[in-house]
Amino acid sequence: MSSLHRIILLAHGSSDRRWCQTFEQLAAPTVTAVPGSVIAYMELSSPSMNDEIARAAADGCREVTVLPLFLAAGRHLRKDVPGMIAELEKQYPLTIRLAPPIGESPQLGIAIRSVVEQTLASTRSRKDA
Amino acid sequence: MSSLHRIILLAHGSSDRRWCQTFEQLAAPTVTAVPGSVIAYMELSSPSMNDEIARAAADGCREVTVLPLFLAAGRHLRKDVPGMIAELEKQYPLTIRLAPPIGESPQLGIAIRSVVEQTLASTRSRKDA
Repeated sequence: MSSLHRIILLAHGSSDRRWCQTFEQLAAPTVTAVPGSVIAYMELSSPSMNDEIARAAADGCREVTVLPLFLAAGRHLRKDVPGMIAELEKQYPLTIRLAPPIGESPQLGIAIRSVVEQTLASTRSRKDA
Repeated sequence: MSSLHRIILLAHGSSDRRWCQTFEQLAAPTVTAVPGSVIAYMELSSPSMNDEIARAAADGCREVTVLPLFLAAGRHLRKDVPGMIAELEKQYPLTIRLAPPIGESPQLGIAIRSVVEQTLASTRSRKDA
């Protein structure tokens, strides 16, 4: 990845620290493998999306892709986040692209099937033990 | 899977039909591959969890695993859903196990990394075109 392109994995945010830890774990394989990728929160938790856009601009990034760690698009992704992005693009000299929520990618449905198959296998092995 | 064990993929539910369609697509690989697996909703959409538990009992199932299609556990999964399950277990002669939300499974973080890598590859190929 060019250092001029940053990926922000955007989670909703929560006052419950355990909730955020789950999202940090979800983001970890990406953050480890993809240089310049970070997690940020829409509200209630830090770093905020604003923080990370400001940092990207300070680092000289020209392009940011925001990938929502949401399973489906509701009001936040149809209205609130696009509004926040429009404001940030006025403040900073970079282009921000909002990707579809991760739940719209076929990879997620396949991962869910894998979790179900593993759950069933562990249920069977408990019974066989 | 024994026909006596049913898997309910539990989504939150929404009055927005598009939101539910995303969850139906997320559930599709599982529902297609795993006999007896179904999607159900906590509220606002149908079939409800109650509907599917009633149907499982009518079909003679003795064991149900509820796998939440949620990325992390908040109030719904820590309090509301366990309460609903406790009530359903009083009404029906079956055991209901609540699994952790899908976002706590390592497969999901790996799927997210795959989505990011695909997003970056498509960005690069657009620039190269």
